[in-house]
Amino acid sequence: MIRVTIFNEHIHEKTEEAVQKVYPHGIHGAIKEFLEGENVVVRTCTLDDPECGLTNEILRDTDVLIWWAHVGHEKVPDEVAQRVQEAVLKGMGAIFLHSAHKSKPFMRLLGTTGNLSWHESGTKERIWVVSPSSQIAKGLGEYFEIPNEETYAEPFDIPQPDRLIFIGWYTSGEVFRSGCCYNRGNGKIFYFQPGHETFPIFYQKEVQTVIRNAVEWAAPVKRIEQLDCPHTKPIEK
Amino acid sequence: MIRVTIFNEHIHEKTEEAVQKVYPHGIHGAIKEFLEGENVVVRTCTLDDPECGLTNEILRDTDVLIWWAHVGHEKVPDEVAQRVQEAVLKGMGAIFLHSAHKSKPFMRLLGTTGNLSWHESGTKERIWVVSPSSQIAKGLGEYFEIPNEETYAEPFDIPQPDRLIFIGWYTSGEVFRSGCCYNRGNGKIFYFQPGHETFPIFYQKEVQTVIRNAVEWAAPVKRIEQLDCPHTKPIEK
Amino acid sequence: MIRVTIFNEHIHEKTEEAVQKVYPHGIHGAIKEFLEGENVVVRTCTLDDPECGLTNEILRDTDVLIWWAHVGHEKVPDEVAQRVQEAVLKGMGAIFLHSAHKSKPFMRLLGTTGNLSWHESGTKERIWVVSPSSQIAKGLGEYFEIPNEETYAEPFDIPQPDRLIFIGWYTSGEVFRSGCCYNRGNGKIFYFQPGHETFPIFYQKEVQTVIRNAVEWAAPVKRIEQLDCPHTKPIEK
Amino acid sequence: MIRVTIFNEHIHEKTEEAVQKVYPHGIHGAIKEFLEGENVVVRTCTLDDPECGLTNEILRDTDVLIWWAHVGHEKVPDEVAQRVQEAVLKGMGAIFLHSAHKSKPFMRLLGTTGNLSWHESGTKERIWVVSPSSQIAKGLGEYFEIPNEETYAEPFDIPQPDRLIFIGWYTSGEVFRSGCCYNRGNGKIFYFQPGHETFPIFYQKEVQTVIRNAVEWAAPVKRIEQLDCPHTKPIEK
Repeated sequence: MIRVTIFNEHIHEKTEEAVQKVYPHGIHGAIKEFLEGENVVVRTCTLDDPECGLTNEILRDTDVLIWWAHVGHEKVPDEVAQRVQEAVLKGMGAIFLHSAHKSKPFMRLLGTTGNLSWHESGTKERIWVVSPSSQIAKGLGEYFEIPNEETYAEPFDIPQPDRLIFIGWYTSGEVFRSGCCYNRGNGKIFYFQPGHETFPIFYQKEVQTVIRNAVEWAAPVKRIEQLDCPHTKPIEK
Repeated sequence: MIRVTIFNEHIHEKTEEAVQKVYPHGIHGAIKEFLEGENVVVRTCTLDDPECGLTNEILRDTDVLIWWAHVGHEKVPDEVAQRVQEAVLKGMGAIFLHSAHKSKPFMRLLGTTGNLSWHESGTKERIWVVSPSSQIAKGLGEYFEIPNEETYAEPFDIPQPDRLIFIGWYTSGEVFRSGCCYNRGNGKIFYFQPGHETFPIFYQKEVQTVIRNAVEWAAPVKRIEQLDCPHTKPIEK
Repeated sequence: MIRVTIFNEHIHEKTEEAVQKVYPHGIHGAIKEFLEGENVVVRTCTLDDPECGLTNEILRDTDVLIWWAHVGHEKVPDEVAQRVQEAVLKGMGAIFLHSAHKSKPFMRLLGTTGNLSWHESGTKERIWVVSPSSQIAKGLGEYFEIPNEETYAEPFDIPQPDRLIFIGWYTSGEVFRSGCCYNRGNGKIFYFQPGHETFPIFYQKEVQTVIRNAVEWAAPVKRIEQLDCPHTKPIEK
Repeated sequence: MIRVTIFNEHIHEKTEEAVQKVYPHGIHGAIKEFLEGENVVVRTCTLDDPECGLTNEILRDTDVLIWWAHVGHEKVPDEVAQRVQEAVLKGMGAIFLHSAHKSKPFMRLLGTTGNLSWHESGTKERIWVVSPSSQIAKGLGEYFEIPNEETYAEPFDIPQPDRLIFIGWYTSGEVFRSGCCYNRGNGKIFYFQPGHETFPIFYQKEVQTVIRNAVEWAAPVKRIEQLDCPHTKPIEK
């Protein structure tokens, strides 16, 4: 049983009618709905929860954390961001969706700005599978399309991924590394670009397949209790 | 002084009028022309030369080998391909252009098939710089365009590059990892996708900049005389 | 059910009494014995079998191939080595043990020589876990020891691993990258350094744990029927 | 001309007689002495300087920053650490020596804890060259030895290096990834493990060679003025 926690800032859905229409139960609600199943149990939390709902206890009970955020990055306290970073380094998996490229935990874990170029033309994106045999691409064809998506463009300021899974092609002329895997500490991190709030992207079958695969991929192999730098003794005399 | 050897199979230029028009002195001639300069001396060879012009002596005197080939891959003797592979592992740099993704030395050095999907629509490619601070991208903007190019599409069967430099966007809807760096043995390898024979791509300023940069990047830091697996003695008692 | 095929050249066990004593049923027999179980079925083959026992049919029915060889590398026909390489690129997993660093399929798949320095002092090796959260290190502590092992020393002529799992420390003063993961084509490759024929290394619990883990890790996610470079059509008009 | 700034916390040299004897002009003084030359100009700063001597102006005028620190990590203000991180992402090179694995800028840039195991037995370390053809290993043999060094042991909590250059072997039985290269943003980062304050390590020829090479390697190819996430326009209509 994989225990997933979805953090969604949950702002757009309350302030913009267009978004509310697409995600009446919030983006977290939409993800929870398709993700929960025989082997996955899902908990959700938002900026409205004390400590963003991400206490140490919750993080310890979380195998994979999913993060969606956009305009509220600064509202996440540094203390929570640090807690999430440390939980990943201790073994928790983390999946950062779309605009979470500028979230505090993502930038902390990768050390780079996560900057990119963007515009909201909302035209078609075609996502190409660069690593067809990766667990995350299981069940996909050579590519899949998102009929309407915000455009993200290179250069994307990230460390070179430990494995690059997807590259996005945009009608408007750009490319983007749309699926990126990292090992950091004991944890696994997956960045997945699709998911602008005004389009029904999380209802799309292929997007759901990827997130489901990523949850399985990111589930911890090993978790440690503490991050320390131990004073040891010589082994050989 | 960097000593460059350009190997071009030199078939299309002799058999197809359209190609002859674009490259009257051969693709090798066009590359030699822009490459030769104060710090670079260039030698060329083709399939017409004995041993493809790539004897052990020539390879020992070569700092960076540039390879263009397409329909004549099988005409390169295995012995020559092996010699090139070994020269790279001993420290010689190598730049594989366009359809050289199926050349014997490229496949030998990477261990994969180099397969991809392709079609000759000849439409526009836009090449995005993914690693702006790499030596190979020096002097380029965010992207550059090739007005007419054969289309290469992912999945490209290569090992994940040690550093990915470019991603190509095609009008016809595809993406491709268009600039890939590798360290193998003591040598450096750069694969660069542009360069279909029917288009005047090697006359384009940005393409010339990339190849010039790549020559500097690939020039050997260290060369060894022999590839061996030495029987040594314990250091500690 | 994971279908494993173990190829062992099976020479030392027949020609050297000391080795025969350690591995009366061959190295392949010893590996098969601990590996076979509820989820793993094992087949073995040797140089004595026609085509090394590695026909296309067998390879198609193999999920993970384990390879041990030392003095008989040249006895493996090029055709068989190529077949194994292609099977890996199509999705079969491969585990290369110890002196298989100079086997034809290993060198073909990585493109480098696999050279290293070595001596047979037979002293202690301590293998450090560099990636504790990798699936392959599951169940291990910070390090484990091999009481007597042939020494392998850097530089090891391999591409930088996609993930480095182990580093070996030798009493005699050397270090070695002892566990290396690669993705190549659709297949996964693991190189594991322990296993000199004169020592009972494959009876050691930690070594068995690693090989068992590696089999699970290397089992195919996706297999393809053919390696091709397809002529496609433009997607966008 | 490469402009180097050396930051040394400069605590041990003032508080411990043993260290003062080894480095009467500070560790920064010792490094400056061997580094300064025809192509390199060196400036130094310490915790005693306002803002650690690392104002935005100084960082803009610095091509490569060298960092030595141990017990004073917390004394570096977060603001200065962030400034250094951003300067690297904008293109400045950075070399982190020895105990700087726990410095704020190092941890920020890599996103991991930099944790390791350690003890001060002060016995011999042998540093093996894993990437002999890298610019950083130029002029070294297969290995070099440090007669007395503090021991650092794996697991070292860092992202897998973009290129691993050195592995350390310790008499006391441990191994360590002693030389690690990273690309982050527009900058290059090199971590180099030798340099405990009580031993005259920075007077050693090989250590000086490595640092000199690393300075050349890390010098910027491209620097940008600002880190931003620009709103752009569609390119294609």
